[in-house]
Amino acid sequence: MPTEIIQKLRDKNTRAISKLISVVENEENNFHDVISNLYPHIGSAYRIGITGPPGAGKSTITDKLIEVFRKKKKSVAIIAIDPSSPFTGGSILGDRIRFVNDLRDPNLFFRSMSTRGAQGGLSKSAKHVADIFDASGFDIIIFETVGVGQVEIDVIEAVDTVIVTLVPESGDDIQMMKSGLIEIADLYVINKSDRDGADNLYASLNKFLQFNKDNEWTPKILKTVALNGLGIKELHDNILMHKDFLNREDISIKKNNDRYIKSVKSFITDKLNKDFWSTKTNIKNTLDLELKLDSKKRMPPFKMAAKILEL
Amino acid sequence: MPTEIIQKLRDKNTRAISKLISVVENEENNFHDVISNLYPHIGSAYRIGITGPPGAGKSTITDKLIEVFRKKKKSVAIIAIDPSSPFTGGSILGDRIRFVNDLRDPNLFFRSMSTRGAQGGLSKSAKHVADIFDASGFDIIIFETVGVGQVEIDVIEAVDTVIVTLVPESGDDIQMMKSGLIEIADLYVINKSDRDGADNLYASLNKFLQFNKDNEWTPKILKTVALNGLGIKELHDNILMHKDFLNREDISIKKNNDRYIKSVKSFITDKLNKDFWSTKTNIKNTLDLELKLDSKKRMPPFKMAAKILEL
Repeated sequence: MPTEIIQKLRDKNTRAISKLISVVENEENNFHDVISNLYPHIGSAYRIGITGPPGAGKSTITDKLIEVFRKKKKSVAIIAIDPSSPFTGGSILGDRIRFVNDLRDPNLFFRSMSTRGAQGGLSKSAKHVADIFDASGFDIIIFETVGVGQVEIDVIEAVDTVIVTLVPESGDDIQMMKSGLIEIADLYVINKSDRDGADNLYASLNKFLQFNKDNEWTPKILKTVALNGLGIKELHDNILMHKDFLNREDISIKKNNDRYIKSVKSFITDKLNKDFWSTKTNIKNTLDLELKLDSKKRMPPFKMAAKILEL
Repeated sequence: MPTEIIQKLRDKNTRAISKLISVVENEENNFHDVISNLYPHIGSAYRIGITGPPGAGKSTITDKLIEVFRKKKKSVAIIAIDPSSPFTGGSILGDRIRFVNDLRDPNLFFRSMSTRGAQGGLSKSAKHVADIFDASGFDIIIFETVGVGQVEIDVIEAVDTVIVTLVPESGDDIQMMKSGLIEIADLYVINKSDRDGADNLYASLNKFLQFNKDNEWTPKILKTVALNGLGIKELHDNILMHKDFLNREDISIKKNNDRYIKSVKSFITDKLNKDFWSTKTNIKNTLDLELKLDSKKRMPPFKMAAKILEL
């Protein structure tokens, strides 16, 4: 990659960053080169994931956290993952419109991503976009995601600190445990903690953590009222504590290696599939012929796959 | 597959069904044969997906719906998807314990599935399990899932009628739209509709549906108080209406074909990966050597992948 582009990224030139994001999101022809060229320039940003059910106040917490980081002169990039249905491809930014990058603060960059935009899979694209921010010298990258599905878990595996936000109304402890949110956090935030049920939720979480104490890091439970900024400073400080822990324990090196391996494997899977489907021209015909049969008379899918693989 | 096993399935023999489910979940050596042999016997069950945020009352709605189906002499199998973190592999059945198959009703079968149980991916296993129920002659198969992630979307693509359950407290309309739940439903259920906010939610949903009217089927919005059974009969009737719609429009044939293609492609991807990683013995060494380098000095992941592919 020409030094001048790297320089533009380092200057946090909005146009240069946005252009690279488009290249990656649309998987343009040269996108593999782009991310390969960025590679030597990444690894300095600290990556934070904020997740939780709809209505838990993730956007507000993110906003308030950004204020703290900006006061400490840290630059922040936010990637808001808006999963959207594959059926219509739509994505709604909703209340985050306020955040678009007209704040005239070059050290703050907000990007929303949806399934629609990400040709090669949302979590993959989101990680590439994070690499662009990383190479651009942002100190902090925040992934904000809704839900608990595979996309979120993929994204969250790629961050350093995972924050799960809950509210007293999130449901009882069993409901939460069922949701899968409960086991992935480094930090729990009980937001809107001035409401009824916050203490119960705290007690349930605490009990659960005692019960599941098998890691060196014991997750913290924090109470916030994000709208008023209550508890945000403590959240910030606990993120830094977790960061220190990761450095101290050399776990970050392992994490780094795991990410590298995963990334390599992911590229290989993509290539194997692409090669297979693009070189065999008679595959489609074989499938189409089978589809003309009544479904009960068709070859079982696994046998059909075996037949195509033999072609 | 021996006729006697098929006969046992048709008799809804709990042990025979459970044994096949284990074969599929654990991806035992012969599992491809098992599902291939089932193939001619599937396609008669009607598949329903029930999803929604934690606390929306999915279990209660499912339970009440089952009662209606059982009164109509329909046999019902339930697959409850409990996504759980990949980090500890745990899964908590919680309040569904009551449901275990000791109800002595052979026409009712409940199965809970978690990431841990499903070696080859939760959504894939869940579909195979549904095929087992289908071959066993269950009239109705209900997938109950939490959340809105990729697992849920994969599962939901494989059902005939998608029901999204919400509660007045689910959050405002923008929050819900962001959650991705809003665009996938054939039927919306506002549960706990005796609470404040139900009418507002109804109005928001209705507005949203007017705005997004681009399909032949206009999703219905139903109000329930599932705990008291209110609105469940209407829900049942609307499921049947949607079923009629699918038949009338011949959409079910397209759906059937799409499922077939997807299933074939999925087997092929698995095989390509498996063959690649099991035949090349020097891959691991190549990767390990690279991991010994300082991360900034490593080959970018994409280039590393290309190098390995060349081996």
